[in-house]
Amino acid sequence: MNLDSLIQDYNNQGIATHNRRLDFIQNDVQIPSNLIQKLKDFQIAIPSWALGTGGTRFGRFSGGGEPGTLEEKISDVGLLHRLNKSSGAISLHIPWDIPSDANAIKKLAADHGLAFDAVNSNTFQDQANQALSYKFGSLQHTDRAVRKQAIDHNIEVIKHGVDLGSKSITVWLSDGSCFPGQLNFRRAYERTVESLKEIYAALPSDWKLFLEYKAYEPNFYSTTVGDWGQSYSMVNKLGDKAYTLVDLGHHLPNANIEQIVSLLLMEGKLGGFHFNDSKYGDDDLTAGSMKPYQLFLIFNELVDGMDAKGMNHAKDLGWMIDASHNVKDPLEDLLQSVEAIQIAYAQALLVDRKALEAAREANDVVRCQEILQGVARTDVRALVAQARLELGGVLNPVEFYRSAEIRKQLIQQRGSKTVATGL
Amino acid sequence: MNLDSLIQDYNNQGIATHNRRLDFIQNDVQIPSNLIQKLKDFQIAIPSWALGTGGTRFGRFSGGGEPGTLEEKISDVGLLHRLNKSSGAISLHIPWDIPSDANAIKKLAADHGLAFDAVNSNTFQDQANQALSYKFGSLQHTDRAVRKQAIDHNIEVIKHGVDLGSKSITVWLSDGSCFPGQLNFRRAYERTVESLKEIYAALPSDWKLFLEYKAYEPNFYSTTVGDWGQSYSMVNKLGDKAYTLVDLGHHLPNANIEQIVSLLLMEGKLGGFHFNDSKYGDDDLTAGSMKPYQLFLIFNELVDGMDAKGMNHAKDLGWMIDASHNVKDPLEDLLQSVEAIQIAYAQALLVDRKALEAAREANDVVRCQEILQGVARTDVRALVAQARLELGGVLNPVEFYRSAEIRKQLIQQRGSKTVATGL
Amino acid sequence: MNLDSLIQDYNNQGIATHNRRLDFIQNDVQIPSNLIQKLKDFQIAIPSWALGTGGTRFGRFSGGGEPGTLEEKISDVGLLHRLNKSSGAISLHIPWDIPSDANAIKKLAADHGLAFDAVNSNTFQDQANQALSYKFGSLQHTDRAVRKQAIDHNIEVIKHGVDLGSKSITVWLSDGSCFPGQLNFRRAYERTVESLKEIYAALPSDWKLFLEYKAYEPNFYSTTVGDWGQSYSMVNKLGDKAYTLVDLGHHLPNANIEQIVSLLLMEGKLGGFHFNDSKYGDDDLTAGSMKPYQLFLIFNELVDGMDAKGMNHAKDLGWMIDASHNVKDPLEDLLQSVEAIQIAYAQALLVDRKALEAAREANDVVRCQEILQGVARTDVRALVAQARLELGGVLNPVEFYRSAEIRKQLIQQRGSKTVATGL
Amino acid sequence: MNLDSLIQDYNNQGIATHNRRLDFIQNDVQIPSNLIQKLKDFQIAIPSWALGTGGTRFGRFSGGGEPGTLEEKISDVGLLHRLNKSSGAISLHIPWDIPSDANAIKKLAADHGLAFDAVNSNTFQDQANQALSYKFGSLQHTDRAVRKQAIDHNIEVIKHGVDLGSKSITVWLSDGSCFPGQLNFRRAYERTVESLKEIYAALPSDWKLFLEYKAYEPNFYSTTVGDWGQSYSMVNKLGDKAYTLVDLGHHLPNANIEQIVSLLLMEGKLGGFHFNDSKYGDDDLTAGSMKPYQLFLIFNELVDGMDAKGMNHAKDLGWMIDASHNVKDPLEDLLQSVEAIQIAYAQALLVDRKALEAAREANDVVRCQEILQGVARTDVRALVAQARLELGGVLNPVEFYRSAEIRKQLIQQRGSKTVATGL
Repeated sequence: MNLDSLIQDYNNQGIATHNRRLDFIQNDVQIPSNLIQKLKDFQIAIPSWALGTGGTRFGRFSGGGEPGTLEEKISDVGLLHRLNKSSGAISLHIPWDIPSDANAIKKLAADHGLAFDAVNSNTFQDQANQALSYKFGSLQHTDRAVRKQAIDHNIEVIKHGVDLGSKSITVWLSDGSCFPGQLNFRRAYERTVESLKEIYAALPSDWKLFLEYKAYEPNFYSTTVGDWGQSYSMVNKLGDKAYTLVDLGHHLPNANIEQIVSLLLMEGKLGGFHFNDSKYGDDDLTAGSMKPYQLFLIFNELVDGMDAKGMNHAKDLGWMIDASHNVKDPLEDLLQSVEAIQIAYAQALLVDRKALEAAREANDVVRCQEILQGVARTDVRALVAQARLELGGVLNPVEFYRSAEIRKQLIQQRGSKTVATGL
Repeated sequence: MNLDSLIQDYNNQGIATHNRRLDFIQNDVQIPSNLIQKLKDFQIAIPSWALGTGGTRFGRFSGGGEPGTLEEKISDVGLLHRLNKSSGAISLHIPWDIPSDANAIKKLAADHGLAFDAVNSNTFQDQANQALSYKFGSLQHTDRAVRKQAIDHNIEVIKHGVDLGSKSITVWLSDGSCFPGQLNFRRAYERTVESLKEIYAALPSDWKLFLEYKAYEPNFYSTTVGDWGQSYSMVNKLGDKAYTLVDLGHHLPNANIEQIVSLLLMEGKLGGFHFNDSKYGDDDLTAGSMKPYQLFLIFNELVDGMDAKGMNHAKDLGWMIDASHNVKDPLEDLLQSVEAIQIAYAQALLVDRKALEAAREANDVVRCQEILQGVARTDVRALVAQARLELGGVLNPVEFYRSAEIRKQLIQQRGSKTVATGL
Repeated sequence: MNLDSLIQDYNNQGIATHNRRLDFIQNDVQIPSNLIQKLKDFQIAIPSWALGTGGTRFGRFSGGGEPGTLEEKISDVGLLHRLNKSSGAISLHIPWDIPSDANAIKKLAADHGLAFDAVNSNTFQDQANQALSYKFGSLQHTDRAVRKQAIDHNIEVIKHGVDLGSKSITVWLSDGSCFPGQLNFRRAYERTVESLKEIYAALPSDWKLFLEYKAYEPNFYSTTVGDWGQSYSMVNKLGDKAYTLVDLGHHLPNANIEQIVSLLLMEGKLGGFHFNDSKYGDDDLTAGSMKPYQLFLIFNELVDGMDAKGMNHAKDLGWMIDASHNVKDPLEDLLQSVEAIQIAYAQALLVDRKALEAAREANDVVRCQEILQGVARTDVRALVAQARLELGGVLNPVEFYRSAEIRKQLIQQRGSKTVATGL
Repeated sequence: MNLDSLIQDYNNQGIATHNRRLDFIQNDVQIPSNLIQKLKDFQIAIPSWALGTGGTRFGRFSGGGEPGTLEEKISDVGLLHRLNKSSGAISLHIPWDIPSDANAIKKLAADHGLAFDAVNSNTFQDQANQALSYKFGSLQHTDRAVRKQAIDHNIEVIKHGVDLGSKSITVWLSDGSCFPGQLNFRRAYERTVESLKEIYAALPSDWKLFLEYKAYEPNFYSTTVGDWGQSYSMVNKLGDKAYTLVDLGHHLPNANIEQIVSLLLMEGKLGGFHFNDSKYGDDDLTAGSMKPYQLFLIFNELVDGMDAKGMNHAKDLGWMIDASHNVKDPLEDLLQSVEAIQIAYAQALLVDRKALEAAREANDVVRCQEILQGVARTDVRALVAQARLELGGVLNPVEFYRSAEIRKQLIQQRGSKTVATGL
């Protein structure tokens, strides 16, 4: 039996329960008329490097059936999208995912209903046969030749992206230092900006450049694009097509990420997101697995801020997952992440913004909290499932994935010892 | 119209909606038959110091109608209990709340349906006319006379507690140091244990001593009972009636509190809780206002661990709120805290423990997460409301409190400039 | 015997030892010819609120002989300056220190050799008889009338400063929120900027406005000027006379403060400093008492960055202490802070910058560390003492202060129960 | 020219300057008569895994001339010891360093003057051909067979240690969980204790077992031996030969490590140390490179606590380095670490303990700080160098290592592409 039929059967079995739940929530709370449509429009890109089992410096415990080629990665994302209808894009990592035939790859992705989201450069590792090392940085490097190599790489990444139809590049730099004194902070900053300007100059007119920041790791004393303020000051120096990208795990302990999101959006400098969750640092855990209320609060700011600017929720920011799956099946983990993100988004759409603003104006703190918590305590899973259903997806993707024994099939096809590129 | 009638009217208006919600959840998820009864049995003590507006070292912005006397404090807790039927105890702070006539106070509390929970000593401040200062600590002090004074105070607190029918004393020490070198850690530890032993010796046979720990503040370099390990090692030296008390805000950043709770419970040394929430430190915010999923995870461990030991959820641990209400009406804030705690408890009771253990044994991490998140995403407010309703309480206490304009009445009675004792 | 004679005697007793030490270091390391002069020029302002014993929300344990009037505060700072010759300025807090007769106060300060450093406004507390409350913020407040009151207060502070000869105002705002949802982050930001613009417009042409940031406390969910990026983006909107002020204790855990300092300086937006130290948060401990190496690293960036811009170390940034002395004699504590700052500054002046830059260019990380640690391990106390001596100060101020029993005299003069205004 | 001659020449060139410095400090401060001897006795073990370039999950940038065999590792440690005479032991990691001929290896080590310190087991990675995986833990594993495999491995490690003359085993477990719900904390704890008991039973009578704790990484939600309290409670259940091991980088942000050290020592349960430094987490940076004052404070507790128990500083605790050298020559880095540790130890020996205790008893906080800071500001490098010199070592090991171009020789011998085993 093919996948479509299996899905049809599965959905048929659950449809009565689903309808009861949907009916309940639709009667119970005030639902904006376009909420389901917004959920349907909202697509979250899957990074090509998150399809295999991740690891730490201490070790990596691989799973089986991991994709060994770009074609298999596209197939995996296509599968996710077939199930949840909300993963309609893939974010490639260069050089891990250089297509040998861009047109064929575009065709393959299109067959799966997938677009190409931001392309990602890599100057945090040395590749085999690379002329110069990034051991002491790339765009910040004291040696102009190393900077040039890194700039050229980024420009090459853009070219690959153009071939595939991407419209943005994400630049994450591990540049920084491990010990006090190692780096001249000013020169590192200036060199980085100068290098970025060269990359920016190569950007097609309809492209965006996302500059990601990160507090620490792999450098353990300073990171040259280390916080939102540093990224923000740099993208301001680059121009209108340069934006800051927020990765949820890239902050110091206790940071108020939702406030940062709100301010970047207000300043017109928020470019997009890398979703994940964490308890200690850049743990790269499943989105919403640790602090789901924080994820909701971030979406609360996103919806509010984007609406204030008349932005299109689905298209005007880059939505990506960036996670590492050390102890889970990566595909199941990604399905859990997308679901958690959709739930947070749906809840944010339910917030009565007029009432909230009125309570804020009156400094009625209790009422503000009641409004947000009231929404966060509402079970919106039926709304998310309904959006999926209307798009032809699966009522409960994780459950279906398991019942259809998809990992077992992937292992049969690809073997149990395959290891995908990635971290 | 009196309060009971107002409540009756209020509940009548909401009952149909409530019943619809209750009906839905009862049909939608498997609910343990005794869940509502457990919710009804579960009472959370209100601390006498949380009935007024709190503040910080930078200032305090008082509200109005705050209770100026112990009688008024009991009246406030009685009101909360009248509304939510889950705040059936008050936790007194000595010397702020020394009753002039213990029997009259007991009678008053009983009229409100209130018991006396743990009594709390105070050796972190100097009282007017106090002979010796606690500037450099109390039970740890280098001067035996200061230690003696602090020991005597604790014994006096126990006596007040005995008069009122309390069965436990909570000892929180701010003892520690502000600068490297200031303290001989070993002697401070030893003196503290020695002092605690004298207090312990004065404990009635059916009493418990709770030893609270705190990472920092008001001492800013070291705290002598600074983490669970220090409290645990001390209560082990005291005896079977000594237990560790966990205050949620008293940890270093990123601490896994639920694991601590589980281990203390396993070791038979968990005594009770001070509920609150925080983002940065000991913020003393409304329970569940910042990290509601963490609160659920803590209750998940509590239910699991207490059941493993055959403990009575309602009676075998001390459940208290410890919060500070700087920008909210304290009574509304407390109603929000109790509600958040009940929701977390109700969700923890919904966890399918057999399925969870089976998934754990199989190292099925995705399934474990699905089970916990499935419960945490379930809207259990109707179950909590039903428990309240069956006890004669109000469907939605905060909403009712506002509609009945209770604060307005308290201000009329007590004035707008009253300031309750507390922090 | 008067103070001058006592000092003379004290110095005479120690001069031989001092000269031996000075001689040793002058022969042992390469000392820039102007180092002693730079140390002599470097003056650190004492805040008027740090002359009394501080406290926390849990309590305050006063000392004795605290200054009760502005005159006594000036006298205390004058005393410090008499001893260390490096505390030649006082930073006033309005409304705590409004002079009744500005000219008389100026005269008194001049008699002590003191200038008036930045004046400080206070909109984080409500003063008696204040029309509107700052409970929910000041410059960010939803109510235009409250914002107006706060703006007017700041303008009044500037006027007091003009009368006294100050050239800068420090604005620290506690504005923010305690609970998710309470604040519209965007509007709070916009209102704050709008309010700051009105204050900025009242700034004399030769004045600077310092905008301090703080991660949290007294607000526990968000702070509207919460990190350097927020302050930086705001001062950029204000104009050339607006700068960011860095308080060492106002950061999230693990923040790389020296990098922030370097970048603000590079961007021409660093205005000045509030020195203190901390382990957990805004602990306001003695400068250099907890992380002295960090203090050195900060001065390493300051010297490097100021020299790169041809700035005058002593005059082009604001140097202030901001500390709280809960368990120490405030005057002794301030002497310790100034000494620690001078040591860090002296060490930073000893860094061989050519060698350091050469090692950086060569990515010789070990050498960079050797250079910085080599300096940090060098005992420069004799150099600091020599600068003090040449200015007529005391070889070891803390030791002298104790031997001369100055606190005892202050208690005799002022009593043992005086409580200075402050936190 | 051979190494001994080179060293002799090098020392001869520096001896006059050294003697001048030594002379100065010996005249300047009160130096305990046995201080130099204590420094000479104090040996710090070098871990076999720290001789190659480390890395992170993001990449690894190898150096050249890294040791490829156990013999070469011993040779490297021998070289370090030849230079600083304070690295007279090596700590082996099994299975990376299993000797094929234990006697030959013992002989080789003895030729270098090296002893074998604690042996280290590895159950945080899967080795090729390993029957069962540690993906979900080792000693905590739900599957008895996995636990058995891990127990057997530890017992085998002990046997290897016995063959080499080691007297202790360090057990570091990465066991824990990545997601809420994944682990039954209680059972994980109980299984771990049960497994440890089996290992403990195999311990020779003159051996010690060190149980290391770590807050997080590679598990990102919970670690089963996660803090000192957990390790302490476990070693108490094991017996007199079981101790807690403190690795400086394994704590939550802001932890007061020196207090933990003091308490474990007081309780007789401190076994030893893994020295390194960090800013953010388990950064594994050079000891003393980030927070040198903290390192001194730790040694201040160690000296005080060991003396209070009459312990032998050099022999009664295990002193080891545990670091990762991502951007430095590992041998230079290790020389820097040892130097920093010796400086901290020398300073701790200089503390006037009687004066400190007297100041503590008097709550004279300023004096306590003056005493500790006075010592920490004293330049003790000449004392450390003198101890080295008396043992036949090099005045300045890093400088000599560079001038003798030792790395160049190692690359010539071993090649530029060798990669040592390790992290």
